[in-house]
Amino acid sequence: MSENNRVKERIEKAAASVSDNYNNQGLFSVSIGERLPKETEIIDVLNEIRKIVFPGFFGEENSAYVNLENFAGNAIAMVYEKLYRQIRTVLLFRGKRNRSEDFDLEVENIVLAFIDKLPKIQEMILKDVEAELEGDPAASSKEEIIFSYPGIYAIFVYRVAHELYKLKVPYIPRIMTEHAHGKTGIDINPGATIGEYFFIDHGTGIVIGETTIIGNHVKMYQGVTLGAISTMKGQQLSGVKRHPTIEDYVVIYANATVLGGDTVIGKNAVIAGNTFITESVAENTRVSALMPELNIKTRN
Amino acid sequence: MSENNRVKERIEKAAASVSDNYNNQGLFSVSIGERLPKETEIIDVLNEIRKIVFPGFFGEENSAYVNLENFAGNAIAMVYEKLYRQIRTVLLFRGKRNRSEDFDLEVENIVLAFIDKLPKIQEMILKDVEAELEGDPAASSKEEIIFSYPGIYAIFVYRVAHELYKLKVPYIPRIMTEHAHGKTGIDINPGATIGEYFFIDHGTGIVIGETTIIGNHVKMYQGVTLGAISTMKGQQLSGVKRHPTIEDYVVIYANATVLGGDTVIGKNAVIAGNTFITESVAENTRVSALMPELNIKTRN
Amino acid sequence: MSENNRVKERIEKAAASVSDNYNNQGLFSVSIGERLPKETEIIDVLNEIRKIVFPGFFGEENSAYVNLENFAGNAIAMVYEKLYRQIRTVLLFRGKRNRSEDFDLEVENIVLAFIDKLPKIQEMILKDVEAELEGDPAASSKEEIIFSYPGIYAIFVYRVAHELYKLKVPYIPRIMTEHAHGKTGIDINPGATIGEYFFIDHGTGIVIGETTIIGNHVKMYQGVTLGAISTMKGQQLSGVKRHPTIEDYVVIYANATVLGGDTVIGKNAVIAGNTFITESVAENTRVSALMPELNIKTRN
Amino acid sequence: MSENNRVKERIEKAAASVSDNYNNQGLFSVSIGERLPKETEIIDVLNEIRKIVFPGFFGEENSAYVNLENFAGNAIAMVYEKLYRQIRTVLLFRGKRNRSEDFDLEVENIVLAFIDKLPKIQEMILKDVEAELEGDPAASSKEEIIFSYPGIYAIFVYRVAHELYKLKVPYIPRIMTEHAHGKTGIDINPGATIGEYFFIDHGTGIVIGETTIIGNHVKMYQGVTLGAISTMKGQQLSGVKRHPTIEDYVVIYANATVLGGDTVIGKNAVIAGNTFITESVAENTRVSALMPELNIKTRN
Amino acid sequence: MSENNRVKERIEKAAASVSDNYNNQGLFSVSIGERLPKETEIIDVLNEIRKIVFPGFFGEENSAYVNLENFAGNAIAMVYEKLYRQIRTVLLFRGKRNRSEDFDLEVENIVLAFIDKLPKIQEMILKDVEAELEGDPAASSKEEIIFSYPGIYAIFVYRVAHELYKLKVPYIPRIMTEHAHGKTGIDINPGATIGEYFFIDHGTGIVIGETTIIGNHVKMYQGVTLGAISTMKGQQLSGVKRHPTIEDYVVIYANATVLGGDTVIGKNAVIAGNTFITESVAENTRVSALMPELNIKTRN
Amino acid sequence: MSENNRVKERIEKAAASVSDNYNNQGLFSVSIGERLPKETEIIDVLNEIRKIVFPGFFGEENSAYVNLENFAGNAIAMVYEKLYRQIRTVLLFRGKRNRSEDFDLEVENIVLAFIDKLPKIQEMILKDVEAELEGDPAASSKEEIIFSYPGIYAIFVYRVAHELYKLKVPYIPRIMTEHAHGKTGIDINPGATIGEYFFIDHGTGIVIGETTIIGNHVKMYQGVTLGAISTMKGQQLSGVKRHPTIEDYVVIYANATVLGGDTVIGKNAVIAGNTFITESVAENTRVSALMPELNIKTRN
Repeated sequence: MSENNRVKERIEKAAASVSDNYNNQGLFSVSIGERLPKETEIIDVLNEIRKIVFPGFFGEENSAYVNLENFAGNAIAMVYEKLYRQIRTVLLFRGKRNRSEDFDLEVENIVLAFIDKLPKIQEMILKDVEAELEGDPAASSKEEIIFSYPGIYAIFVYRVAHELYKLKVPYIPRIMTEHAHGKTGIDINPGATIGEYFFIDHGTGIVIGETTIIGNHVKMYQGVTLGAISTMKGQQLSGVKRHPTIEDYVVIYANATVLGGDTVIGKNAVIAGNTFITESVAENTRVSALMPELNIKTRN
Repeated sequence: MSENNRVKERIEKAAASVSDNYNNQGLFSVSIGERLPKETEIIDVLNEIRKIVFPGFFGEENSAYVNLENFAGNAIAMVYEKLYRQIRTVLLFRGKRNRSEDFDLEVENIVLAFIDKLPKIQEMILKDVEAELEGDPAASSKEEIIFSYPGIYAIFVYRVAHELYKLKVPYIPRIMTEHAHGKTGIDINPGATIGEYFFIDHGTGIVIGETTIIGNHVKMYQGVTLGAISTMKGQQLSGVKRHPTIEDYVVIYANATVLGGDTVIGKNAVIAGNTFITESVAENTRVSALMPELNIKTRN
Repeated sequence: MSENNRVKERIEKAAASVSDNYNNQGLFSVSIGERLPKETEIIDVLNEIRKIVFPGFFGEENSAYVNLENFAGNAIAMVYEKLYRQIRTVLLFRGKRNRSEDFDLEVENIVLAFIDKLPKIQEMILKDVEAELEGDPAASSKEEIIFSYPGIYAIFVYRVAHELYKLKVPYIPRIMTEHAHGKTGIDINPGATIGEYFFIDHGTGIVIGETTIIGNHVKMYQGVTLGAISTMKGQQLSGVKRHPTIEDYVVIYANATVLGGDTVIGKNAVIAGNTFITESVAENTRVSALMPELNIKTRN
Repeated sequence: MSENNRVKERIEKAAASVSDNYNNQGLFSVSIGERLPKETEIIDVLNEIRKIVFPGFFGEENSAYVNLENFAGNAIAMVYEKLYRQIRTVLLFRGKRNRSEDFDLEVENIVLAFIDKLPKIQEMILKDVEAELEGDPAASSKEEIIFSYPGIYAIFVYRVAHELYKLKVPYIPRIMTEHAHGKTGIDINPGATIGEYFFIDHGTGIVIGETTIIGNHVKMYQGVTLGAISTMKGQQLSGVKRHPTIEDYVVIYANATVLGGDTVIGKNAVIAGNTFITESVAENTRVSALMPELNIKTRN
Repeated sequence: MSENNRVKERIEKAAASVSDNYNNQGLFSVSIGERLPKETEIIDVLNEIRKIVFPGFFGEENSAYVNLENFAGNAIAMVYEKLYRQIRTVLLFRGKRNRSEDFDLEVENIVLAFIDKLPKIQEMILKDVEAELEGDPAASSKEEIIFSYPGIYAIFVYRVAHELYKLKVPYIPRIMTEHAHGKTGIDINPGATIGEYFFIDHGTGIVIGETTIIGNHVKMYQGVTLGAISTMKGQQLSGVKRHPTIEDYVVIYANATVLGGDTVIGKNAVIAGNTFITESVAENTRVSALMPELNIKTRN
Repeated sequence: MSENNRVKERIEKAAASVSDNYNNQGLFSVSIGERLPKETEIIDVLNEIRKIVFPGFFGEENSAYVNLENFAGNAIAMVYEKLYRQIRTVLLFRGKRNRSEDFDLEVENIVLAFIDKLPKIQEMILKDVEAELEGDPAASSKEEIIFSYPGIYAIFVYRVAHELYKLKVPYIPRIMTEHAHGKTGIDINPGATIGEYFFIDHGTGIVIGETTIIGNHVKMYQGVTLGAISTMKGQQLSGVKRHPTIEDYVVIYANATVLGGDTVIGKNAVIAGNTFITESVAENTRVSALMPELNIKTRN
């Protein structure tokens, strides 16, 4: 047997086995006219929205020459068209919907509802930027924060994804927040509810679960988990409130863990770093861990 | 002295010093016919494999029109050729090998051995996806998991890299897993051994060391370290088992730390979050930290 | 009203509101001749410098054919020109400077001062690579470290950004280190001072604050925070030393937290994992946490 | 008035005038759900088809490893999907069609009819390659012809475009042939009818009009025009046969001009270079110009 | 001598000789702060202008959603900024100008003068499109002409370049028209003067010289040369009118040659194909060649 | 039968027929380890050489900062490596050669021989630029010529390809010159021999055949053909001198045709436009056509 044939045969044998795996799953078959959503196209929409929210920072436009209202109009129209295509794709794929004029209108209404929310999303993020500047002594200006703070990027993506989540768009919100998670190490589920002036510093390792509720003016540092109390129940818990509620003006320092759907951190409370909290904390209290004593000895 | 000359002179002075640094290292000289591997090309191979494992999700192919067995055959043949080139490059560079027909055959055998494993790798990952769906109440479908879960991406890359690691391919496995580490914050050494139905949630900050052994149906959350007990011995420990063994059905919650090559977490055990474990844990036990008491006072 | 008009109207209404948001902020207006810096161009400079520091590893050049001193000269000249453009842009934007021959000369001097430092930066990083090889039993060679260790990437970027920080270049240093933060999960503020032979393992979640001082031969693992003691004072603290000092040969294991501007970890000290330290530690001591007792019970 | 405002005002004035021009044309308005075709996407389809016709020559596939039948299957399926999208776009735009299931089916039938023709198109082009090799003493092999002969590229594009033209697809055929015209200087209207074993040498300046009919084994050199007899009637002639008929085995040398819908160049005729022909030529004749006498004098 | 050294030595010897060539030319040295223009950036400006002139045809914008006046405003502002940079570059380079506020203002005035002309340029091209539709029986619609007719592309580029030529911008106009020449085979010098409703069919091989003057409603086919009478005087003729004048409503058929600065083709004249004209032609005349008799014999 | 199946079936039927076509040709099968050359990679080499020949014009390098000798050294080393790979590929493919150390050395010698010629190639082209400037009254400077004259591009590519042709490298020379043909409409066979100070104006439609010999200081305008006398012998003529010889200082005006391997245009001769020449022309003569009389009548 020639070398060519030997290699080809081994490749085809592998292909046949891989193909058996395909058939043993319902995952890999779609119908004529459908396709799966594409992450790159969804991230593209996200980047377009970022340019609208922060004109001049991430695109080619320069407000010295460009009329920014016109710029926004154009850019939103572009977002409209791209988002329309993405949402149509995921609804067709998820819902096994018929292609029809009615369905097209339904998609249009979802996209328009999102577009309506854009100015509000932007206001929220600009307040988050203010909170960042006020809270971080290392920040030299709002521009620096917009350009480089991972916390602001993660919150921006969350705020966009959350509106799509509320409009019951499948796949897209989570693809967006996991993209931000990959770039920042900050994992905010699009289902969470987060108020104004949210401040994140450093941020790597932050986890904010799907049913979390966070008030206004909350500050949070790296490694904070707002999670579910451990259980083995998995899918049975889908939809149940299993993550905590954080009220206005709460501060949670680095690596604190707050768990449980009934856990409420009351207004104005301060949670010190490295604490582990599974019960509610009253308003205006400061909770710190009695850190374990240190064992100090001369190094040999 | 003209401005041109002044700038050029300063640049050339810097270049001369940089060049001295080159010469003081053996690192930067290669022989005719050799080259260093390129990260971009290796990641390209990884992306191609991902398309084979999850057809329709990350490529242009659409199973409504494409015969998936043919698709897999083509795609594996492409992977064959690209991987052949990469492995040839690293073996030439690492081993200072002669270019010869024998050497070419050796490379071919390594690549074919990897190709043979592809269906098995895929089966494993599809089981990991199942574990993810079952274990995470926020997951709405397998598709969402494949598209967006960083845990699945990190495990996929590990499973590919691990097979290359077992075939003693240098550089490439680590370049692959560190790429996944960069994208997900999950650091799995390609030398680790990990069983079926592995579940990772959130994932940022997970570290799984080179000599770790993990059984089937294990669940692990963000910030978990499976590490070595701290020592100052560095390279002397190369090859020694210095990371723990985790048996089937173990669950390790967020930010737990399990250290040591002799530490065995027995079948079915549950390790709570924020624990620090340096000794073995028996089967069917639940280990939690007596968390340090909290110091709660009114905030002033 | 036609469908076209309805959609356009909703889009323009959103644009008008977005534009109101622009006007309520001083952020989005620049003058003729100015522009905001662009992240992509800054990262491009960083990548060029990386090729100079590690020739053959990340570019197309191959030392089998290329004279490396010539290579360095060319590449530095390219960096000169690109960096000149970026620094000019940020100084114009930040400082509302006049475009003049004097200003051009000022920019030139900053860039030349940076170029002068390049060989020193490179020497430092090559020492960091040595430290990495010596300290990590899983590392098989310096090449593997250069290719794939996130710690080396983060330190490299820090060392470049730190020189620009010392030259009082705005925006660019932070954009650089946050880029590295995004890729590695390692957050080193460009203002920190870090000595030779710095070793980082795994690295995800490391935070090193702006006024931190680190000596030579220091080793640090994932999740270590060198931070400020929590306060609510925000911008009032700008410029104050609020992060710790780490002396030569100190080792800090995973997830340790060291806080406070007056906290000094003395020469040769070892800080164990999961410790929480807010006071100085004497030279040659080993500090470990008396870990909270574990609560072990049979799992039901 | 500030410099900013002056510039913006001039820009907006220009925009208003440009916009008036838009409104004075029906050209620039489309309805919701429609879009104009995009040249880049159409050329992309053309490139995909070229890979199918000449496997290994223009794509990444390598027949040493790839099963070419599988390759063709995959690639045709990709072409199917992309062409479907393009044809749907142009039909919607041109015909102001309703989006409906019936319309989708109509598009599908057109695309399938084209797919059915692909093997025939390929056979034809492979014969054209043979003709090229036989006819050109400078050609060293079929491979060289496929890689580099502009004549083959132009004929290939024509053969693809002609099938779409016959299926009454608007816009796309002409965009394809004008793309080839731009790359080769050979302008073949997609409506022309061209037989087997068509040979073009050099080719720049060749023009073959819409209603031309060309038999088998015809050879043609640079600068040949097969055109209409000059008239001023423009659009009134749309659809009328106004270009010549060229029968089997005819050879037409460089810069010959053959005009008129009733002009027939009979089987086996040879038309010499620089001739100007507006009447039919009998079979088996050789037509040359009595070239004007040359005026030769000593150069002063 | 090792293989490495032998290769490097040969390369460096070639580099030294190449460098000698550099030094023997004044061409390759620029001063600090200068750079040569870049073709890619100039073509980029051209493409942006094309999107403004034909909205929806070549960009992403879709008039179903986008307000086209806003679109134009944005796009012109982008063109302003890019063109400013290019013109500043060429003037600095060509004129060895000082960088100063005065110079910046001079550039601004040139760019604004061009922007003022944009609506007029567009009107002219839309008339050219009309002429194309009316004159070509193979044209099915204005859209097809805009998408695919090389004549329209060449005229568009000429009309843009001509305005810059009139503003005495160096390099850029010719780089633009030669780009069009490369894509279409139509070579129109930016210095030529061309009236309204200009019609070009097929076009390959058309040459229109620098001092040509063309009136309104002129039609021209492939291979037409409007050139200078042959002389050996080269640069001595720079600036002299040496190309013909073509008055309104003239038609010039394929491959006609019209030469000489004093040659005037009078209003309404028709010049047949393959004619060679070096003297003026009166209004309302039709000039055809008495084509050389054909020599027809039976082919042996 | 479902819609999915119907479409897939038609696609697979087409694939089977296409695959039959593959098998009926020897063209599409290569052996393990071989691949076909890739046009894009060959053009890439050409572009790199262009940057060496004209530093600053087409690359990023700027001689204000870069030492041009170093630049050339680096760039030539890059060309060495890339060209090595391409030549190795074509020789393996064409010659069915064994991979061996001897073969590698043979490739190396070819590439080095080409590198040796680079300075000479550059000198030649710089002389061609001088000829262009001197001969064209519309040319404003050498820079404009280098940037935008298609004649210079075509000659540059020819000069590179001709050296490779002389080294008997298959495929690559023709791929290069046909690339230039596509961009400029100027078709120079790499086998032609062309002396110094070659001048081409406009250029579209020029054809220079494989066995043409051209002396120094020759000038040539658009549409000139230096061709073979028409024959039907095709491949039988391979290698025979069948194109003319043009001696020093000859000028050939637009659309002249010179044919035949024995035709010699003597030193200093001038060939007027639109002439058709198949016999030798003596030195110092001027040959013009007695143009056919014009038929001038009033247009009706």
